[in-house]
Amino acid sequence: MSDPSAPIGVFDSGVGGLTVLRALRRALPSASFLYLGDTARLPYGTKSAATVTRYSEQCAAALIERGIGCLVVACNTASAFALSALERRYADIPVIGVIEPGAAAAVAASASQRIAVIGTEATVAGGAYQAAIRRLNARAEVSTRACSLFVALAEEGWTEGPLAEAVARRYLGGLFEGEAAPDTLVLGCTHFPALETAIRAVLPPGVRLVDSAATTAAAVERRLGADSGRGGGAVRWLATDGAARFARVGSLFLGEPLAAGEVEIVDL
Amino acid sequence: MSDPSAPIGVFDSGVGGLTVLRALRRALPSASFLYLGDTARLPYGTKSAATVTRYSEQCAAALIERGIGCLVVACNTASAFALSALERRYADIPVIGVIEPGAAAAVAASASQRIAVIGTEATVAGGAYQAAIRRLNARAEVSTRACSLFVALAEEGWTEGPLAEAVARRYLGGLFEGEAAPDTLVLGCTHFPALETAIRAVLPPGVRLVDSAATTAAAVERRLGADSGRGGGAVRWLATDGAARFARVGSLFLGEPLAAGEVEIVDL
Repeated sequence: MSDPSAPIGVFDSGVGGLTVLRALRRALPSASFLYLGDTARLPYGTKSAATVTRYSEQCAAALIERGIGCLVVACNTASAFALSALERRYADIPVIGVIEPGAAAAVAASASQRIAVIGTEATVAGGAYQAAIRRLNARAEVSTRACSLFVALAEEGWTEGPLAEAVARRYLGGLFEGEAAPDTLVLGCTHFPALETAIRAVLPPGVRLVDSAATTAAAVERRLGADSGRGGGAVRWLATDGAARFARVGSLFLGEPLAAGEVEIVDL
Repeated sequence: MSDPSAPIGVFDSGVGGLTVLRALRRALPSASFLYLGDTARLPYGTKSAATVTRYSEQCAAALIERGIGCLVVACNTASAFALSALERRYADIPVIGVIEPGAAAAVAASASQRIAVIGTEATVAGGAYQAAIRRLNARAEVSTRACSLFVALAEEGWTEGPLAEAVARRYLGGLFEGEAAPDTLVLGCTHFPALETAIRAVLPPGVRLVDSAATTAAAVERRLGADSGRGGGAVRWLATDGAARFARVGSLFLGEPLAAGEVEIVDL
């Protein structure tokens, strides 16, 4: 990163990436950030690879225009489909997605190398986690499940209690049964850390949870090293639609209040 | 409608409008249809009025280009925000939304004129049902609730059983308590008829359900009269993304199989 005071650009299809931003701010408290939520076109998780790649390129271009020094793709679906295209196009700055860090953390955490990955339909069908884990350990056994309803639950703020646990049980019930059950679960969607308590409640004891938000923040910190954290700590908020909803739902993911007046609407 | 063999154009943000198409085909078995699901940009229900209007105009233009003789806006959010703009722009053909028919059916069904309306965040916040009901009866009492998770439940196919009922109870529980409880519930989102069994299970006995799909089909039938139903009964399917998902999830709403190969992808 040539200019250490340049902001770190972070984008997601909406508010889920705020779990990554939250982890990034904790890891790099002096860095400044520019966050873009493509709320006019969310969710990416049910869309095709070609569409997600086009949208991701438009998000990245909007952040690059505004002078970022590092790009974080804080969306699993965008990371799965568009990361290599973005790395090629913006080869002069670090471009970091959420999948490689999550895959590496899972391989490091799992004793049995039987790893389960949950995500959106598109992330799971795209197979990027499976491929990233097998690049690190060709003998790892990866099972996956799409958990689309977790996104809606998290956005509704229904993150704990019997209903969230019933949904978690329905998705995860069969996945951890039997002798060959996985010992590690990757939360392969940036919305899912919000549901961590409900997910833990239905998992057998001892299963390790890998949260791609925390692992991505650690990867950015490693990558930037001494170049990070001289931007002053400010965050600038951009969204492509609905400042009020972005602020209201976003504050659930960010873990602190966010005012609609702080959110600038941009047209991609 | 100048040419009775011209197809009836129907659009929605995705697959929910297929409940309206299903009702239309039942009402007008000899009409032909052109259905467009704007799956690249769904859902509309969490987006702003300006964005939904722009997207709706693009959907309508794509159908008009393909020679439709009548336009059905099979999406509550698009009907709430964009119907009058579409009526002005396409004044030479019938343009019919889902809100007026649902409001009229609710006023006709309710003995107490206390009516509850459930829909997406945008539909409820926009107030179009409230306004449409009050235009018909200024003294009607309208209560509303946004039920965002119903959309995800319906798309997941989890439409019945304890989980769907738990979600319905959480949304609707308080709405029908007390002496001044509504006696009629409008399903103000085209996804919601799929959840009818679970919704009925948590309502007090005697509450009338108004399904905007059936009421809209009846309104189209009345409007077209003798001009309807000479197109031969065929349906042409258009979507803006993801033919495989459109076909798979869409068949749940349509109530019959739909093959991905039949779905043409268009770029708006």
